[in-house]
Amino acid sequence: MNLLRQSLLKVNIFPALVSKQQNTRLYSKIEAVFKTKPLGSRMTVQGWIKAKRKMKAVTFIDISDGSTSDKLQVALLRDVAPNLDVGASVRVEGTLQTFGNKDQLELVAEKLEIIGQCKHEDGYPFNPRKSYSMEYIRQYLDFRPRTNIFSSVLRVRSSAANEFRNHLANEGFCELNTPVLTSCDCEGAGEVFSVKPHNENLLRQMARKGISEEDTFFNTKAFLSVSGQMHLESAVRGLGHVYTFGPTFRAENSKSRLHLSEFYMLETEEILDNNNIETVLSTIEKMLREVTQSLLDKNLSDLEMIRNVQVNQRKVNSNVSEYEVEPLDLENVRKTFLPSCPYSIMTYKEAIEILSMCKEDFKVKPDHENGLAKEHELYLVKRNNNIPIFVVDWPSNLKAFYMKEIKNTSNVAALDLLVPVVGELCGGSVREDDVHVLSTKLNRLGLEEKMSWYLNMRKFGNVQTGGFGMGFERYLQCLLNIPNIKDVMPFPRWPHNCFM
Amino acid sequence: MNLLRQSLLKVNIFPALVSKQQNTRLYSKIEAVFKTKPLGSRMTVQGWIKAKRKMKAVTFIDISDGSTSDKLQVALLRDVAPNLDVGASVRVEGTLQTFGNKDQLELVAEKLEIIGQCKHEDGYPFNPRKSYSMEYIRQYLDFRPRTNIFSSVLRVRSSAANEFRNHLANEGFCELNTPVLTSCDCEGAGEVFSVKPHNENLLRQMARKGISEEDTFFNTKAFLSVSGQMHLESAVRGLGHVYTFGPTFRAENSKSRLHLSEFYMLETEEILDNNNIETVLSTIEKMLREVTQSLLDKNLSDLEMIRNVQVNQRKVNSNVSEYEVEPLDLENVRKTFLPSCPYSIMTYKEAIEILSMCKEDFKVKPDHENGLAKEHELYLVKRNNNIPIFVVDWPSNLKAFYMKEIKNTSNVAALDLLVPVVGELCGGSVREDDVHVLSTKLNRLGLEEKMSWYLNMRKFGNVQTGGFGMGFERYLQCLLNIPNIKDVMPFPRWPHNCFM
Repeated sequence: MNLLRQSLLKVNIFPALVSKQQNTRLYSKIEAVFKTKPLGSRMTVQGWIKAKRKMKAVTFIDISDGSTSDKLQVALLRDVAPNLDVGASVRVEGTLQTFGNKDQLELVAEKLEIIGQCKHEDGYPFNPRKSYSMEYIRQYLDFRPRTNIFSSVLRVRSSAANEFRNHLANEGFCELNTPVLTSCDCEGAGEVFSVKPHNENLLRQMARKGISEEDTFFNTKAFLSVSGQMHLESAVRGLGHVYTFGPTFRAENSKSRLHLSEFYMLETEEILDNNNIETVLSTIEKMLREVTQSLLDKNLSDLEMIRNVQVNQRKVNSNVSEYEVEPLDLENVRKTFLPSCPYSIMTYKEAIEILSMCKEDFKVKPDHENGLAKEHELYLVKRNNNIPIFVVDWPSNLKAFYMKEIKNTSNVAALDLLVPVVGELCGGSVREDDVHVLSTKLNRLGLEEKMSWYLNMRKFGNVQTGGFGMGFERYLQCLLNIPNIKDVMPFPRWPHNCFM
Repeated sequence: MNLLRQSLLKVNIFPALVSKQQNTRLYSKIEAVFKTKPLGSRMTVQGWIKAKRKMKAVTFIDISDGSTSDKLQVALLRDVAPNLDVGASVRVEGTLQTFGNKDQLELVAEKLEIIGQCKHEDGYPFNPRKSYSMEYIRQYLDFRPRTNIFSSVLRVRSSAANEFRNHLANEGFCELNTPVLTSCDCEGAGEVFSVKPHNENLLRQMARKGISEEDTFFNTKAFLSVSGQMHLESAVRGLGHVYTFGPTFRAENSKSRLHLSEFYMLETEEILDNNNIETVLSTIEKMLREVTQSLLDKNLSDLEMIRNVQVNQRKVNSNVSEYEVEPLDLENVRKTFLPSCPYSIMTYKEAIEILSMCKEDFKVKPDHENGLAKEHELYLVKRNNNIPIFVVDWPSNLKAFYMKEIKNTSNVAALDLLVPVVGELCGGSVREDDVHVLSTKLNRLGLEEKMSWYLNMRKFGNVQTGGFGMGFERYLQCLLNIPNIKDVMPFPRWPHNCFM
C-alpha cells in the first residue's frame, strides 16, 4: 500500500482518516492514441504482443491492449529488444512517430518491460502464424477473448447492447429487470430448469409440513425464466413503455447452431396505438435500423477485423460446413437492416402459399398446420433480397394462449420477423386484453388459479398492450455473419457443456 | 389487421409482399408535453387517472402515462365527464392551455374515452385518498408499479443502470455478460442454488453412465452464479477493461432488509497502474460521483416525488421502525456522493481501533478477528459526516483466497466501501497474480484441479488486475433513503417468497 496520507481539514473527525490522490491513468489507451495521434509525445503503453517482425537492426512488434482492434506498431532497437513471444504482455515507453507514406503510427521504444511471458511450449493454444477455425477457437473458452476475432466480437456485442438500451431509453422505454427466478413457467412448455439450494442442511432447517423438499426454499417450485413478458405486462400498466434485456433459459437437449441453454433476450411491452400490431412492427424496425446504423458508424474497425479473419478462415478451412455462410460484408449489412424500402410484411397464409408453389427442394414440406421450418424462413428471406420480412396473422393453434384473437378468424395478431443467417429474429404479438376470453383460455389450460395475477391486472385500469422478444445473439449472428451462436456468447452453455 | 398494402416496386419478388406505413405515435407523451409545452396545440393523451377534483361546472383529473412522475391536469366540462374512478385508464383529446399565475399546464378536454374501468369495490388495493406504508404496497407486487413512489423508483432504477453502463463505456470498459449458469461455485461458500432440467423424461433420455441424474444435463453440477469475477479475469486478459452487470444469486435463509435471493451486481476487472489498489479506488469514486451527478441532473422530478411520498408516509405511519431512516434529501445525497473532499480511506486496523475506543453501545463488540458488523459500518460512516469510507488492508483470513497478499504482513490488498443506510456498498481487491502462491492456496482448498483454468490464465501473457463488485440495489437504497432492499427491486425474491 502506497497511499498518500494527509490530514483532512474539513472532515478531521478520525485522525486516522487519509485522503487519496486523484489518479490519472499512467498508461495511454491504444484506442485514444489512434484517435488523437499525439505525434512527438512520450507515452507508456501496456498490452499484448500480437505479431513480431525481426529485421537486422530493428524488431517490430504489434501490440494490442484490448481497447480497439487496431494494433500499435512498436519499433525496438536491438538493445531494447529481449526475447519476445507473441502473446506476452509488455509495458513499452517511447515516442510516437509516423512511418511510411500512409501516415501510419509507430511507437519508437526507449524501454520495454516484459510483464508476463507466453511460452507456447507450455501449452498456449494459439500459434501466431496459424489461422484457426471458429470450432478450434471455441475449444478454449478461457483463452478465446485473446484472439483477434473474438475480442472484436465481444466489443461489438458490448456496443450493440448499449445501442439497443440507449435507443429504447430515447424512445421512452423504462428498463425493468424481470426476475430470473420465477414460480411461473410462462408458456407452459415444460422446457424449464428448476432451482433449489445446494445446501441440504439449509433445506432441512427450512422444512415446513406439507411442502416437498424441492419447494422448501421459496414455498413453491422455482424455475429459471423463459421470458419476462408477463412481468412486463404487470409493469407496463404503471409505466406505459417497458423493456427487459437479460439472460433467459431453455432446458432443451438441442445442439443446433441457433440454440443455447442460456441466452440473452430483449423484450418490450408497450401500450398500442389504435390497438394495432403495427405499433410493435414499427418499434422493431426503427430499433433495428438505428442500432445497426450506429454500429456501422462507431465499430467499423472491429467489423473490418471480423471480416478479415473470416476471409482468412475460409482460405484455410474451406471444408468446414459452416463456411457456407459468406464473410461479413458491410454493404450486405446495409442492404438487410437499412434497405431504402420498408421491411416487408406478409401473412402466414401468404408465406405458406409462396413456399408451396416454389420449386425449392425442402426437407420439410411446407404445410399450413406445422408452422415454418428454419429452411422455409431462410428461403423466404433469401428470395426477398435478404430484406427482413414480418410474417403476421398466425393460426392461433401455433401460438401462445395470451395472443389476441383476430375477430371472425382462427388467427391471432402475432408476428415473426425473419432475417438472413438465423431466420426468426423476433417474435411478438398483441396481448389478449379481454378478461373473459383470457379467463376461458386459462381455465382450459388448468392455469386459472396459478395465473390469477395475470388475469387480475386486466380488471383495473386496463390497456391494450403488445410487444416482442428478440434473441440478442441472433441479431449478432445476422449482423456479423457468424453461423454458430456459441461464437457470439462469451461463455456459452449447451447440453453437456458448462465449462468455467 | 389493417395494414396498408401497396406493391413494392423495388423488391417485387413476391406479389403478396406488402409494405408498412411509417408509424408516428398517435398519443403525446406527458413527459414531452411538459418539456416542449406546445400551448394551443390539439393533442391526444392516454393514461391513468391519479386524482380527481369535482367542481360545479368542471371536473379536474390528473393523469399519468408512466413517462414521468409529473401529472397532466385535465379540465372536463360536465358534458364530457362520465363517472370516473381513480386508477381507470382513459384517452383524452383536447387543447393545451395554461392556468393560474404559475404558468401550469392544463389540457382542456373535448373528448374523453374510458379504456379500462377501475372499480375499487372489486378488490383494487389502493384507495386514492390514503397514504400507504412501503410494507403495505409491497404486498401487491403485481400492482405496485402503479403507485407514485414505486413508479418513480423504477424510473430512477432504469436511469441509474444506464448511467453506470454509459459511464463505464466512456471509461473504456467493455461489457461482458458473464454466465448465470456455472460449474464454478466461486468462493466456495456453499450458499448457491443448484439447477437441473425440470423435465424428468429429458434427464432419462440424456442419461450417461457414471453421471448422477442431477448432473446429467451439463455433465457436471450446475449452479447459479454468485459472482462473475473469475470469468471477468479470463476476459480482461484480452480486453484490458471489462465489467458485468446482471442478476446474482444467494441461497441464504436471510430475511434482512439488505439481502435478496436474486439481486443485481456490477463488477469490474481492469489492469492496474503500478499494481496498486488505488486504481480500483479511483474507478469506484469517479463512477459514483459521475453517476450520482447525472441522476441529480436528469431525474429530479422522480427524486422529488419519492421524497414527497416518504414525508407523507412518515406523517401517517410514524410507528413503523423503518421510518427511522430520514426521507430522501437532495442536499444529503450531494454531501454523501459528491463531497468537496475525496472519499476517506482507512485501514481495517484503524477502523477496529476507532470502534474499540469509541463509547458507542454496540450489540457486537468490535474485534480484529471478526470483521465489521453492520452497526460498525454504519457508525463509522455516520461519524465521518456520511462521507463514504474505503476500508483497506484486510486480514487475509477474513477475505477470499484470490486476493493479493501484501508483502511481510498477514493482510491482503482488499477494500470495502462503506456508505450511509446500507454500510458496505462495494467490495474489491487486487488479485493474486503469482501462479505459485495461487497454486498453493487452491491446493490447500482442494480446488487445484477444478480451478485449473483459473490458474492457467496466469501462465500466459499475465497482467496484474483488480476490481470490485457493487450491489446495485444497495446504491439505490443509499441514494433514495429506502431502508428495505425489497422496495428497490421490481419483483423481489427472498426465502418463502417467489410470487409471480
